[in-house]
Amino acid sequence: MQLEYSVKTERRTHFVIIDHLLQKAIDESGIENGVIHVFVPHTTAAVTINENADPNVVRDINTEMEKIVPFHDHYTHMEGNSAAHIKSSLFGVSETILVKNGRPMFGTWQSLYFCEFDGPRSRRVWFSVQKED
Amino acid sequence: MQLEYSVKTERRTHFVIIDHLLQKAIDESGIENGVIHVFVPHTTAAVTINENADPNVVRDINTEMEKIVPFHDHYTHMEGNSAAHIKSSLFGVSETILVKNGRPMFGTWQSLYFCEFDGPRSRRVWFSVQKED
Amino acid sequence: MQLEYSVKTERRTHFVIIDHLLQKAIDESGIENGVIHVFVPHTTAAVTINENADPNVVRDINTEMEKIVPFHDHYTHMEGNSAAHIKSSLFGVSETILVKNGRPMFGTWQSLYFCEFDGPRSRRVWFSVQKED
Repeated sequence: MQLEYSVKTERRTHFVIIDHLLQKAIDESGIENGVIHVFVPHTTAAVTINENADPNVVRDINTEMEKIVPFHDHYTHMEGNSAAHIKSSLFGVSETILVKNGRPMFGTWQSLYFCEFDGPRSRRVWFSVQKED
Repeated sequence: MQLEYSVKTERRTHFVIIDHLLQKAIDESGIENGVIHVFVPHTTAAVTINENADPNVVRDINTEMEKIVPFHDHYTHMEGNSAAHIKSSLFGVSETILVKNGRPMFGTWQSLYFCEFDGPRSRRVWFSVQKED
Repeated sequence: MQLEYSVKTERRTHFVIIDHLLQKAIDESGIENGVIHVFVPHTTAAVTINENADPNVVRDINTEMEKIVPFHDHYTHMEGNSAAHIKSSLFGVSETILVKNGRPMFGTWQSLYFCEFDGPRSRRVWFSVQKED
């Protein structure tokens, strides 16, 4: 069963916690134990798992990534968003999370983030589960 | 069922679209719905999913990555291809793609790329499917 | 079946080969063919697959990553380990490996590494298998 949800981003670079969509996909699929795959069907966005306690962590990630992959840097792609494409490949559009007793298995500080690199936009995120053998 | 195909790269850094191999693996495995895993068994190559419409996107990715991880930078590894190893880990050697009705589920502009970072070479790519429960 | 093992890291940045834990998870789960998922439940660590023959490769990866994402760079996160969080997202906390005849399918030079970016610490790594249909 494949599930699709919408994510609304509000800035050019915006990391949005989507733990509630992850839980919704687990609930709607009825999986108790196994794995859930997340997939972002966009080329200027990504998914990542990182700290949810201090919002400064995500701020530092984005400030530093802007230094590493500047938004303007003599790119040839006419749309002007090449930096967003590069970040998409560096962070990656797929992630696999273990599921136990109907809950995602995360470490204490982990959350699932939708990573917007060329917003604000209305985006989509897909999930697919594999039940335990 | 695990499937292996060959990929020929033609430059030191070369992103090759392998959507046809992905479709071939789906067809040969007989999967209709579920997920397909891609794996690159090399340490100086990777896989990524990114835009297939404007070839300038891939050109920009490679030009910028050469600035971020220069090919020559006083590396200690005697083979001289440490930059390729670093890029391999940053882009990653595995990716998971959803499958629906015997077709990979991609966003409008997405394609699967084999990423060569130390070519030209003859390379391999592996696929494995998990059917939906 | 989900399996958890401990990993001890000995430096602030430390790549530790965990092929033996991967094999242990395969053995304990009883999987012969399919895939095994690795997941790191930490936000300042990661997993990657890279070369195991020359230890200089890993040294070069870490030296270069320190240049790309400096440990000190005016970060706002008070714990001072923002660089480790950034590297965690760039390398990623999950990886999927094919399994054939009870062995991980790796290329000739590949090994699985636990990536410590804010050690030394006692860490955990999780595995989950999906048998072939």
